[in-house]
Amino acid sequence: MILRIDRLETELPPPSTPDPAGAAAVQELLGGKFGELSTFMNYTFQSFNFRARQQARPFYDLVANIAAEEFAHVELVSAAINTMLTGAADDGLPEAGDLLNPQHFIAGGASALPQDSNGKPWNGDYVTATGDLVEDLTHNFFLETGARNSKLKVYEMVEHPAARALTGFLLVRGGVHQVAYARAVENLTGADLSKLFPAPRIPTDKIPESKVHLEQGEHAKLYRFSPEDYKEIVAVFNGPHPETGEDLTVVDHAPEGAPPVDLPPETDVFAPDYAPEEIAAIAQKLREAAGLPKEPTGVVANNGGNGSVVDKVKDAVS
Amino acid sequence: MILRIDRLETELPPPSTPDPAGAAAVQELLGGKFGELSTFMNYTFQSFNFRARQQARPFYDLVANIAAEEFAHVELVSAAINTMLTGAADDGLPEAGDLLNPQHFIAGGASALPQDSNGKPWNGDYVTATGDLVEDLTHNFFLETGARNSKLKVYEMVEHPAARALTGFLLVRGGVHQVAYARAVENLTGADLSKLFPAPRIPTDKIPESKVHLEQGEHAKLYRFSPEDYKEIVAVFNGPHPETGEDLTVVDHAPEGAPPVDLPPETDVFAPDYAPEEIAAIAQKLREAAGLPKEPTGVVANNGGNGSVVDKVKDAVS
Amino acid sequence: MILRIDRLETELPPPSTPDPAGAAAVQELLGGKFGELSTFMNYTFQSFNFRARQQARPFYDLVANIAAEEFAHVELVSAAINTMLTGAADDGLPEAGDLLNPQHFIAGGASALPQDSNGKPWNGDYVTATGDLVEDLTHNFFLETGARNSKLKVYEMVEHPAARALTGFLLVRGGVHQVAYARAVENLTGADLSKLFPAPRIPTDKIPESKVHLEQGEHAKLYRFSPEDYKEIVAVFNGPHPETGEDLTVVDHAPEGAPPVDLPPETDVFAPDYAPEEIAAIAQKLREAAGLPKEPTGVVANNGGNGSVVDKVKDAVS
Amino acid sequence: MILRIDRLETELPPPSTPDPAGAAAVQELLGGKFGELSTFMNYTFQSFNFRARQQARPFYDLVANIAAEEFAHVELVSAAINTMLTGAADDGLPEAGDLLNPQHFIAGGASALPQDSNGKPWNGDYVTATGDLVEDLTHNFFLETGARNSKLKVYEMVEHPAARALTGFLLVRGGVHQVAYARAVENLTGADLSKLFPAPRIPTDKIPESKVHLEQGEHAKLYRFSPEDYKEIVAVFNGPHPETGEDLTVVDHAPEGAPPVDLPPETDVFAPDYAPEEIAAIAQKLREAAGLPKEPTGVVANNGGNGSVVDKVKDAVS
Amino acid sequence: MILRIDRLETELPPPSTPDPAGAAAVQELLGGKFGELSTFMNYTFQSFNFRARQQARPFYDLVANIAAEEFAHVELVSAAINTMLTGAADDGLPEAGDLLNPQHFIAGGASALPQDSNGKPWNGDYVTATGDLVEDLTHNFFLETGARNSKLKVYEMVEHPAARALTGFLLVRGGVHQVAYARAVENLTGADLSKLFPAPRIPTDKIPESKVHLEQGEHAKLYRFSPEDYKEIVAVFNGPHPETGEDLTVVDHAPEGAPPVDLPPETDVFAPDYAPEEIAAIAQKLREAAGLPKEPTGVVANNGGNGSVVDKVKDAVS
Amino acid sequence: MILRIDRLETELPPPSTPDPAGAAAVQELLGGKFGELSTFMNYTFQSFNFRARQQARPFYDLVANIAAEEFAHVELVSAAINTMLTGAADDGLPEAGDLLNPQHFIAGGASALPQDSNGKPWNGDYVTATGDLVEDLTHNFFLETGARNSKLKVYEMVEHPAARALTGFLLVRGGVHQVAYARAVENLTGADLSKLFPAPRIPTDKIPESKVHLEQGEHAKLYRFSPEDYKEIVAVFNGPHPETGEDLTVVDHAPEGAPPVDLPPETDVFAPDYAPEEIAAIAQKLREAAGLPKEPTGVVANNGGNGSVVDKVKDAVS
Repeated sequence: MILRIDRLETELPPPSTPDPAGAAAVQELLGGKFGELSTFMNYTFQSFNFRARQQARPFYDLVANIAAEEFAHVELVSAAINTMLTGAADDGLPEAGDLLNPQHFIAGGASALPQDSNGKPWNGDYVTATGDLVEDLTHNFFLETGARNSKLKVYEMVEHPAARALTGFLLVRGGVHQVAYARAVENLTGADLSKLFPAPRIPTDKIPESKVHLEQGEHAKLYRFSPEDYKEIVAVFNGPHPETGEDLTVVDHAPEGAPPVDLPPETDVFAPDYAPEEIAAIAQKLREAAGLPKEPTGVVANNGGNGSVVDKVKDAVS
Repeated sequence: MILRIDRLETELPPPSTPDPAGAAAVQELLGGKFGELSTFMNYTFQSFNFRARQQARPFYDLVANIAAEEFAHVELVSAAINTMLTGAADDGLPEAGDLLNPQHFIAGGASALPQDSNGKPWNGDYVTATGDLVEDLTHNFFLETGARNSKLKVYEMVEHPAARALTGFLLVRGGVHQVAYARAVENLTGADLSKLFPAPRIPTDKIPESKVHLEQGEHAKLYRFSPEDYKEIVAVFNGPHPETGEDLTVVDHAPEGAPPVDLPPETDVFAPDYAPEEIAAIAQKLREAAGLPKEPTGVVANNGGNGSVVDKVKDAVS
Repeated sequence: MILRIDRLETELPPPSTPDPAGAAAVQELLGGKFGELSTFMNYTFQSFNFRARQQARPFYDLVANIAAEEFAHVELVSAAINTMLTGAADDGLPEAGDLLNPQHFIAGGASALPQDSNGKPWNGDYVTATGDLVEDLTHNFFLETGARNSKLKVYEMVEHPAARALTGFLLVRGGVHQVAYARAVENLTGADLSKLFPAPRIPTDKIPESKVHLEQGEHAKLYRFSPEDYKEIVAVFNGPHPETGEDLTVVDHAPEGAPPVDLPPETDVFAPDYAPEEIAAIAQKLREAAGLPKEPTGVVANNGGNGSVVDKVKDAVS
Repeated sequence: MILRIDRLETELPPPSTPDPAGAAAVQELLGGKFGELSTFMNYTFQSFNFRARQQARPFYDLVANIAAEEFAHVELVSAAINTMLTGAADDGLPEAGDLLNPQHFIAGGASALPQDSNGKPWNGDYVTATGDLVEDLTHNFFLETGARNSKLKVYEMVEHPAARALTGFLLVRGGVHQVAYARAVENLTGADLSKLFPAPRIPTDKIPESKVHLEQGEHAKLYRFSPEDYKEIVAVFNGPHPETGEDLTVVDHAPEGAPPVDLPPETDVFAPDYAPEEIAAIAQKLREAAGLPKEPTGVVANNGGNGSVVDKVKDAVS
Repeated sequence: MILRIDRLETELPPPSTPDPAGAAAVQELLGGKFGELSTFMNYTFQSFNFRARQQARPFYDLVANIAAEEFAHVELVSAAINTMLTGAADDGLPEAGDLLNPQHFIAGGASALPQDSNGKPWNGDYVTATGDLVEDLTHNFFLETGARNSKLKVYEMVEHPAARALTGFLLVRGGVHQVAYARAVENLTGADLSKLFPAPRIPTDKIPESKVHLEQGEHAKLYRFSPEDYKEIVAVFNGPHPETGEDLTVVDHAPEGAPPVDLPPETDVFAPDYAPEEIAAIAQKLREAAGLPKEPTGVVANNGGNGSVVDKVKDAVS
Repeated sequence: MILRIDRLETELPPPSTPDPAGAAAVQELLGGKFGELSTFMNYTFQSFNFRARQQARPFYDLVANIAAEEFAHVELVSAAINTMLTGAADDGLPEAGDLLNPQHFIAGGASALPQDSNGKPWNGDYVTATGDLVEDLTHNFFLETGARNSKLKVYEMVEHPAARALTGFLLVRGGVHQVAYARAVENLTGADLSKLFPAPRIPTDKIPESKVHLEQGEHAKLYRFSPEDYKEIVAVFNGPHPETGEDLTVVDHAPEGAPPVDLPPETDVFAPDYAPEEIAAIAQKLREAAGLPKEPTGVVANNGGNGSVVDKVKDAVS
């Protein structure tokens, strides 16, 4: 089972100049073979299918726990894409000739899709879960390497602040997973995978948007994403970081994260409606009927920002 | 973000007579168009992409929170399939002619795959997330209807106790989601979808394995799968149950669930290894080096059951 | 535009001993690369996309008109599959181990799917419509050859009377299309494709279920499937039949066909419902309210056959 | 069986400034999950697989008859795309950088493809035909809702007159199907789906290109697309229109429609040939040999328009 | 460019009792994610796309040369499947219920398909060719590991002599590629991947059908598959074998291999024809007209074996 | 088995102005339904699966031998795409909005992918290998026709010198294969397919980049791609060329070809590395340790061209 926390793992900038073509490229990090849906689903299925997990608990805990962080990464890529698409349909929909992925607007509501940068849907063939522990961990190390490659290239290709903040962060956290799987393989076999770092062979600190996270030590910490479980990750995630030599440490809780920006309606794509104020009015009445406070209980980064809309609605229904 | 809890949403029986053909049929509930990966990913993407969520908070909370429960259902179907496959490779692998899905053994380790009952991988085309709230909720109501149809048929087709326990439970919980989305549409439009229950038009209490959960009122409760968030689901999930007239209620925490059965190794498919005792020995040393207790900290349903293996290992490494 | 006629192009036998594995094989003729969905969609798109059709009217008419007959073939294959699946779920659903395609029952209602014999969905990649007339006609000749190959093999593989009646008929009619496209290419280029007949090199009259149709001359007639249009097919479909030397002739209307068997409900798969008599009762009331006669206006092959059910319903609602 | 009528369901404008990028977007309405191939194939398979159709005749007739209209919509979208691509290859093929879907020219002859707006082929997974009548009708209502969403967005994204005429018309006719399925569900269950109109929540009369059809009452008429069959649709399609309150009526024949524009050759993509006048000359001879009139018997919108070409050919062959 | 040599890389047994279900399982080694089409295409594309190959010649040569051997493995798996299917259609086609993959007979001529064990076609998504040398080599090491896993399981699942001979051989040769890529990574990074052997952790010499090849030292030799090129593989493939410590050596030519068995006609699937003697007669005449010797110039393992057929033909045409 | 020769079948120009959008269009010739992967894999599987090949040796030899040439075509298209992408990432990656296929840079290293012009992966469904000789040869004739169509259109769409050199050459060689299969069908059936030439109906000599090859007689020669085998192709490939009447001749060896251009590193996409000089240095040491000459043994078209880099490296490691 999972519990959801309504926060992003890191802060993303609010919408600025829209960049639909860039958003189409960022899709590779969501639904590509080496995207976050792949890391999430690979580790999730490996944890579901893990046999004899009591005997191999530290490894089971590692895979299951990293799977949980990957969900946050899927969420973060989606949020970045949604940010980049915000405003693109403000004066009518963009012209087809300006788009790489028209489905962002025709199928979605100026929003992320489970697809890669060519508009091809993610599929279950991208999951490798053989049940052979050493093999699956070796695979995971490679998968993170491929993911790092994609992130570096999307960083270079797309200049939008949301894309840069996203990739800067993911490079650091993906790097932690690379290290974790390398350590696991090392523990099981003695093979010194630390020699393969960095892979690709460009140090993360060359990326300014990664540096801020490196300075906070995010490259050497593994968070425990569970109230009570997965405590044995400490048995694997330890020793020196392969690039910096710093101690690898386990943080015994999830990161604090940041509230998401509540992205504004895009009425031309009916998200959440052609006339969102009607939905707002209904929501307000339901909220009151249920004895909830007048103000929404959710925490978002920009309560003030679109408060005006909320205010307008409150006037309308009062 | 999510936190994982290392428990299943409900108890599943331990392995008994293996049923690989049945397990292949159960895959439809995992990776089919109307399977649990579809419900999980549909609601997850809808929640990620939800615009103006503060204004529509009760509906955002509803979708985001049900998404969290769907993860538990993906997990549960996987566990059932793994249970049904356990033991099938005990005397060498099964013959190809006795299988519907040979990849259970060739690609997996006698384990679940992100595929449907024809061995076709799940793909992102199964996700509908238009951003239009009424449309997405209507879709979700229909999706749950299709899912209920599949579950009823798998229940009939497969007699294995794990499949029956699984479908019995999912029919009840899926029914709750059907009701929740019907209520949401009703609140937004006034359309009385409660008239469509049950859909398909067979009452759930005809299923003995569902009855036990009905008797505990599981058909009328929506759990909140979050430490702090998604509190506004109460604004939508209320009123009478469309079939029984009982009050719909929100439970302000996740269900207690049950510890998973730690499924035994399947050495013929190298899960977790050809010689799992070697992994166990390494794990034990790592555990001790990290200052963890000698006994694995994880909780499983059958600690005694495969304790003998654990004991053997402890002897070996002491 | 099209008009539908609620009759099959030829008579199929009523349900007998069910044969779900055979039905899975027959799917190749529906959704395989060389199946009827492919012939239907290839010629349909070629006709939609046909440029300068006035100048090339005899060829446009030929392609457009054959497309219309292919719809009837898609319908006929579906009817055969549905016939073969009828009764398979009478004592509960069949066991997964007895099936090649479990989705016949889990996704469908003991019914046909747009898939091939491996359960792979038909897809648009199977359509070739280059717009180059000689090339498209050459392609169509080859497509019919591949289709004939598949039909011959399904004939051999599946003994069920519905499958045999189906393939016996389709071999004859597909042969006509082979001839028609060969004649078209010959007219445009002078290449003597008649030398390629029969392809595969086994004469159709070796198939007893084809013989009945051959004896009625069905192998040398092209029907015109339109009230007013496609009259110029006579300009292409003429001359001697490449195998028999008989005159090729155009019949200036659609074939008479036969009423379909009204297949009985399969309540275990909820087709059309768990309690179909309730639907029947509602239908009866609606019919009467609309001033329609008490008896259904549709013509089916077995009005008497399931009249008992209809009678029961009439009693119930009177 | 079907009969084809060589007319479009409504008039489309002749080619004007080509818009290949717009044409790529319009593909979503042809081969997308919610495109016309999907509506056509969903209802067609549901009608093929309909069990106990005599008992449920009004519903069978409804689904089977709407399927027939959907063929006309597939045809219409194809014609619009072909219109938009006409002329794009007049000075050599367009540069790849100006295209969203290069296969329009490389695989097709400046012509429509069975693909969506990302160039992904349509596939049979988009068909839902469970056999459960209430479920399938609920699905169809939702499918039409999704289709209306796509049409509205393509309307906004693409300004080409053919795209606007297309979407303006389809919004009206798709709306009729939405109503028809809502009525069917209402009749079977009592659920008041009319409250869900319009969905998306933007009235169709905001679209100027729809208005012309609304003014002719096209939003409240269901045509019967058959010489003799499907007469019981009147038992379902009646009562007030959910938005306007006008009476829903059945027209007892197909719409008159309009002759298609005979699109000019595109010799650079060999459609219908590199030297189409040679084909024209051959066609002319075949026509005469078959005793057909010298003028093509087909009716197109622009007989005069490309008459010059025809004239040239006649000169050449005389 | 390539030159073909009409020999298999190793000897396969002639047809014996057919095993169509087993053949369907063996397909995983042909068209599965970890099958030989994947290894062949991965290394082939990596070699095509290799930048700055002069500077990195030993690595380019290694990848390009192993690609060439993989072609031989695709050929060998195909030959094994064809062997296993031979005779299955001797008394009419097998019944669908006895098959896992009906397309072996309906689409093929009792012959191999580019599909996996679930009948899913191989696709280009299985190719990883990032251009980053260390990453691609790491990937290749992992790919060979996954391939070894599949081969071990197919070995266990399928007892047919052709399948056993096939997997016994491929395990040895695939192991060589594993070693080669491990050595390449080691040379570039210093990471000691040799510690990961064997992976999966079962020694190859447990497989009797592998032992014969081990005894000939086939596990420690890399063949050079080129008349003149790829000479720098010696710079990478050297040092001790990670499991046995023996010297790794390069053989400066391709292996001698063995002539293929000329598999007999299967007339029920028209391979090569319904009446193959007619083709034989034509071939004989063409051969003579071209001044070729009367006996076919090709070398096969069973010239005597089906000589009777050849004799019969010679009689017929003389 | 195959032997690789490290030369291209014809010379391609070195990199000039990059053209990523054009390169995306050229992908159709690599991974499209009618691309070179399709011709290669179709003929390869047909040769693997060929039954009774001794009896039909001339035809077996023909298919097997042409398959070998198709590998060279896959290689050539890849080289052209890589040439067109070279330099596109010199000042950072190109912007997403300037690309049709972002995966050229995100998944690849400015390099070719096994995909079509819409970024859809090649798949095994594109292979037709029925085992029926006449049918497969007819198919192959058609496949070459479709391939010629695609090549002509890519020629027109893309002006980059590498694309033009590529398509000019492939049109000539593909034409030879068209002729060869036509001759084979003619020999087996008597059907005069030579009347279908040219198809599409535009003579190859209209293409300047083809003319150079025509003038060398490349349109009438079939090369034998084997040291010893496939000698019976002379029995089929003879007689007059259908367009020119010249004698068809067999060249008893592979063409001489040309050395490939060694494309420069693209460090922004890490091909072959972020710091390729490090790889060069390692390679140099390995080369020396293995007793290889200091200069790379491979032959490329531009040894001088990037010698400067090689020189720099030699300095660095000396």
